[in-house]
Amino acid sequence: MKVAVMNGVGKMGYTERPIPQPKDDEVLVKLEYVGICGSDLHFYEAGAIGGHVVEPPFVLGHEPGGTVVEVGKDVKHLKVGDRVALEPGKTCGHCEFCKSGRYNLCPDVIFFATPPVDGVFQEYVAHEADLCFKLPDNVSTLEGALIEPLAVGFHAANQGGAELGQTAVVMGAGCIGLVSMMALRAKGVSKVYVVDIMPKRLEKAVELGATGVVNGARQDVVKEIMDLTEGRGCDLVIETAGSEITMQQAIKGAKKGGTVVFVGYSLKDNADIPMNLALDKELTFKTIFRYRNIYPMAIEAVASGKVDLRNIVTDIFPFSDIQNAMDQSVENKANIVKAVVKIAD
Amino acid sequence: MKVAVMNGVGKMGYTERPIPQPKDDEVLVKLEYVGICGSDLHFYEAGAIGGHVVEPPFVLGHEPGGTVVEVGKDVKHLKVGDRVALEPGKTCGHCEFCKSGRYNLCPDVIFFATPPVDGVFQEYVAHEADLCFKLPDNVSTLEGALIEPLAVGFHAANQGGAELGQTAVVMGAGCIGLVSMMALRAKGVSKVYVVDIMPKRLEKAVELGATGVVNGARQDVVKEIMDLTEGRGCDLVIETAGSEITMQQAIKGAKKGGTVVFVGYSLKDNADIPMNLALDKELTFKTIFRYRNIYPMAIEAVASGKVDLRNIVTDIFPFSDIQNAMDQSVENKANIVKAVVKIAD
Amino acid sequence: MKVAVMNGVGKMGYTERPIPQPKDDEVLVKLEYVGICGSDLHFYEAGAIGGHVVEPPFVLGHEPGGTVVEVGKDVKHLKVGDRVALEPGKTCGHCEFCKSGRYNLCPDVIFFATPPVDGVFQEYVAHEADLCFKLPDNVSTLEGALIEPLAVGFHAANQGGAELGQTAVVMGAGCIGLVSMMALRAKGVSKVYVVDIMPKRLEKAVELGATGVVNGARQDVVKEIMDLTEGRGCDLVIETAGSEITMQQAIKGAKKGGTVVFVGYSLKDNADIPMNLALDKELTFKTIFRYRNIYPMAIEAVASGKVDLRNIVTDIFPFSDIQNAMDQSVENKANIVKAVVKIAD
Amino acid sequence: MKVAVMNGVGKMGYTERPIPQPKDDEVLVKLEYVGICGSDLHFYEAGAIGGHVVEPPFVLGHEPGGTVVEVGKDVKHLKVGDRVALEPGKTCGHCEFCKSGRYNLCPDVIFFATPPVDGVFQEYVAHEADLCFKLPDNVSTLEGALIEPLAVGFHAANQGGAELGQTAVVMGAGCIGLVSMMALRAKGVSKVYVVDIMPKRLEKAVELGATGVVNGARQDVVKEIMDLTEGRGCDLVIETAGSEITMQQAIKGAKKGGTVVFVGYSLKDNADIPMNLALDKELTFKTIFRYRNIYPMAIEAVASGKVDLRNIVTDIFPFSDIQNAMDQSVENKANIVKAVVKIAD
Repeated sequence: MKVAVMNGVGKMGYTERPIPQPKDDEVLVKLEYVGICGSDLHFYEAGAIGGHVVEPPFVLGHEPGGTVVEVGKDVKHLKVGDRVALEPGKTCGHCEFCKSGRYNLCPDVIFFATPPVDGVFQEYVAHEADLCFKLPDNVSTLEGALIEPLAVGFHAANQGGAELGQTAVVMGAGCIGLVSMMALRAKGVSKVYVVDIMPKRLEKAVELGATGVVNGARQDVVKEIMDLTEGRGCDLVIETAGSEITMQQAIKGAKKGGTVVFVGYSLKDNADIPMNLALDKELTFKTIFRYRNIYPMAIEAVASGKVDLRNIVTDIFPFSDIQNAMDQSVENKANIVKAVVKIAD
Repeated sequence: MKVAVMNGVGKMGYTERPIPQPKDDEVLVKLEYVGICGSDLHFYEAGAIGGHVVEPPFVLGHEPGGTVVEVGKDVKHLKVGDRVALEPGKTCGHCEFCKSGRYNLCPDVIFFATPPVDGVFQEYVAHEADLCFKLPDNVSTLEGALIEPLAVGFHAANQGGAELGQTAVVMGAGCIGLVSMMALRAKGVSKVYVVDIMPKRLEKAVELGATGVVNGARQDVVKEIMDLTEGRGCDLVIETAGSEITMQQAIKGAKKGGTVVFVGYSLKDNADIPMNLALDKELTFKTIFRYRNIYPMAIEAVASGKVDLRNIVTDIFPFSDIQNAMDQSVENKANIVKAVVKIAD
Repeated sequence: MKVAVMNGVGKMGYTERPIPQPKDDEVLVKLEYVGICGSDLHFYEAGAIGGHVVEPPFVLGHEPGGTVVEVGKDVKHLKVGDRVALEPGKTCGHCEFCKSGRYNLCPDVIFFATPPVDGVFQEYVAHEADLCFKLPDNVSTLEGALIEPLAVGFHAANQGGAELGQTAVVMGAGCIGLVSMMALRAKGVSKVYVVDIMPKRLEKAVELGATGVVNGARQDVVKEIMDLTEGRGCDLVIETAGSEITMQQAIKGAKKGGTVVFVGYSLKDNADIPMNLALDKELTFKTIFRYRNIYPMAIEAVASGKVDLRNIVTDIFPFSDIQNAMDQSVENKANIVKAVVKIAD
Repeated sequence: MKVAVMNGVGKMGYTERPIPQPKDDEVLVKLEYVGICGSDLHFYEAGAIGGHVVEPPFVLGHEPGGTVVEVGKDVKHLKVGDRVALEPGKTCGHCEFCKSGRYNLCPDVIFFATPPVDGVFQEYVAHEADLCFKLPDNVSTLEGALIEPLAVGFHAANQGGAELGQTAVVMGAGCIGLVSMMALRAKGVSKVYVVDIMPKRLEKAVELGATGVVNGARQDVVKEIMDLTEGRGCDLVIETAGSEITMQQAIKGAKKGGTVVFVGYSLKDNADIPMNLALDKELTFKTIFRYRNIYPMAIEAVASGKVDLRNIVTDIFPFSDIQNAMDQSVENKANIVKAVVKIAD
């Protein structure tokens, strides 16, 4: 099968590898769409994230959707022809984190496209069947590929205790900001405002259902939040931008007793936080690492029309154009909100 | 009655005022002990905390214990002679915070010794009966005075989700650090380590029940925590020291999925926090502002012997010596862990 | 002003009383619509509910909507002309239940139309301003009257932990069953099935947004639930019918680890429950008593179009026809799903 | 190795089987003590529990403690000579219940002594290493055997939200009632009253730390609970007796807003419950099925002296006397609170 590999910083190429054989508890999936994530771009540009260093040739891509073409003999809930979204992390099932339902913290997780584990910019993958979630007829494999980032948005919304009656603000209107906004809306939050500095992203936020937007480049974000909430501040902020300034705005814009969910990593490891103000308001901060137990709910949210994943995609690149797909995504961040690679029809 | 007043920064004095008349829903309490809190000292030294500026003559003190000497006509649960601990904040009962049980966030709270509201370094006070909690026979009014700081410790432990089986670390062994440690122990946490840089405070921590102590001036705090937890980190940190370095240690020493409760205000408004690390570990941060719904539980914890409040007190000053009490408390922080003013026998 | 009074079992009449004067923290509301609740009908038919015995002349009605016509001097958030929904219970604000946010359990509550406290089938009422919630422009006072039953539905959904991704079943399609179904839908639950034995009620359920219905008179309810959930059972059941058979079906139809919320009182005090089965499945049972902290959220749910309160009303009676309104409501339960009395234009 | 088998209702015998070989992720444990549980006795007397029917020869026993004598090659946290408590249920690790941390509800669980799965009244067992928990030096293998029932008590206490400041009542002073009482105490609950009808069991409850006891054969249980709580009722009831009368007392004795945890199965499948009263008080009912994620906490509770497991044992039978052990346990329930079989020294 054809596999796209990163041959070095900024260099993509292709290689041929054998189609894998599914184990008894696995299925073989013919991939159709794989999303390009910010972490893929970061590995592509920098060659590493923290201690995870790319050793070329390395396969990027961890947001896959496709169709089952072979089924291991112990697999009961899937059959050939089922279209599926693939959760990219295999966990041990036995450690204290797995046992207590927080498997996203499993120290032995094997996660697509996290060195040294290869990702899935390739034609086929054999994957644990329990991590392959069947898509209903009205959910496409393109949407299936986007369940992965949507799961991040839902985990953020869940950890923040999102619910009907709240006023929420999302900092950042990149892919994760937008899926967080849609997750909040799907969970019943009527008022969700989105903050960014790029007009195209704010337009996209409105198109996808934001109650309103604030342009941080031209408006006083904290003042706008206070005006929108009659001076009380918002119940919930989801911070996806990863900048110190938006982290500070999140805390300043939050209501007494409110919650801020930190999602976005920042370029520098530390952030300067108005901690005394947080104490005055008795804020709760949650942080999230990937997600857990989200896929079935996220798929249902798409199937029932609560989340419009299709329109978050701004660019679809053919598999044969992977170099361009990566380069464009890096260079044109103002216009490419979310790019996906089309592996096969 | 005799009232101790702050006549200016660093200047205490006395005045005479009429003994107040209790309203129908109030009781008149003859005060016996009033603790000296860090915030009293801060007002005394600096004349203000944030927007709360002392206008002399001002009465400090908000940790009172005493005996009921008169009862308003609508009061049913107290009678003359009952010894009580007084919760210092009256709240509106009608705002969204009060209605939802988070009355500590009530914007209309009237709280002892928070300008412009006078405190209780005085012989009598009339106070809402529902805020006066009867002490069992085996709990003294000295202990009653200390229920107030203990309530802070319990609120921190509650917000942190403290429970049996966890390993917890308390940053800071001042009064609030010590009551936090005792609150954790009372809630069943077997392993509670305390970090400070003053040997006398660490000795006090051990005396009052800490499982172990770490001297941050001589030991690598994060390394010690990791050694004590077989490299996993601790489940819960309660940060009472209010310094940037202990906040950072708290985050570095916490286990994946763990919780850090921020209690201590710092001298500078902002703190530099390793936020990316917090994201990697999916930490939760809680902050606390005073406490809510704690007094009955805290009194029971003292009555049942789970908390040793008596031995937290290092110094008792007579009411006639208030100037010295304040000065000593400011100047001799290494030795005075907790001072109390004895108002009357 | 004109007041409708219950002069005895099955006997309504009118009397004249002075228009009340609002206290400083109250507003005077000119009532426009007051819903007829099942408890009003029970008092009307039986003269008592438990220990609450009607002493004629007694005023029924506790689901009011109207317009503010006079404002007490301490009231800040309302002005003359504001249209409001009135929460019918005044609570003490000081007991342990009020202090901890569970004011619906306050032992000193004063609740409209609960003997000996009169209700509001009358032209005006003076009510604590904090219990009068302003309606947005797009929410009518008819809908305002129905916020009260909707609050019951939301409290049930909240207590049951309703959320996106669940499959829920509501037992009973009377007013409370229907508002529970709508509350579940508003909170993001995509799949909500409703069970009743009256076809007209089931039609109404579908009209108002139920995913599907089960006619308990003709279908095997438990089997239907299992078929709808691929044999797993449903995550959440809200039992509003108050019959032993539906309580049993609720438990049998629930999934392992699921939750059943009991809302409906039954005619007999005890119910025969399959408790061993509940243990096998580790079910949680919640019960609810009225509601707490719901009105703002419920009003927003109506304003944002998530809940269609207008179409739950099947009958509107003029105030001059109160005898008929009560009699019809009692006699014609199969067709009158929800009746409202129109007090004034 | 020697294996005790149930050859029919009321008939025990012995057989020889090969010592099992541990798999790569297993350890071989030489058993020292195995507790006799109520379910063992029920299988012994009745030959079945629900759909689980004994096919002789069948091995009973699921409360084991012993010493590791061989270690599979992938096992890292245990070594030969480690003394361990064995959690008896292996779960799949992949279903929705396992993934969400509720592995006790796993439909594919393999649990010792639950037909057709054999138990461990035998000299050796090979068991998944992750289910073998190392005992500290100050915890014996006799106590290790009793971690299993203690885990039930802790799960009940956890599900009930037990915490400092509550007043709790435990219905039933058999083994599960006693461990529930000790779990409550270990979690900080100061006031725990125990109800039973057998004097010896009530004496044992006092000996092990109950605050007080009520003899249901001679006292009005509900009246006693009300007297002990100044008429308010208790915050938490753990019902382990499994009788309709104690279930009813639990509900009648609970405080408004309180919680009842149902643990004990009853002889008849249904129970007649005062549901209207539960609604009036807005009670929560929890039920429990076995336990999850408890062993490390339970072992620590024993090691730290919070739970006195040693003195719950009233009778120790030698392995050679298994027929007598079972017969005595069945016939002499008034005196044998907890029996253990000593497999080896």
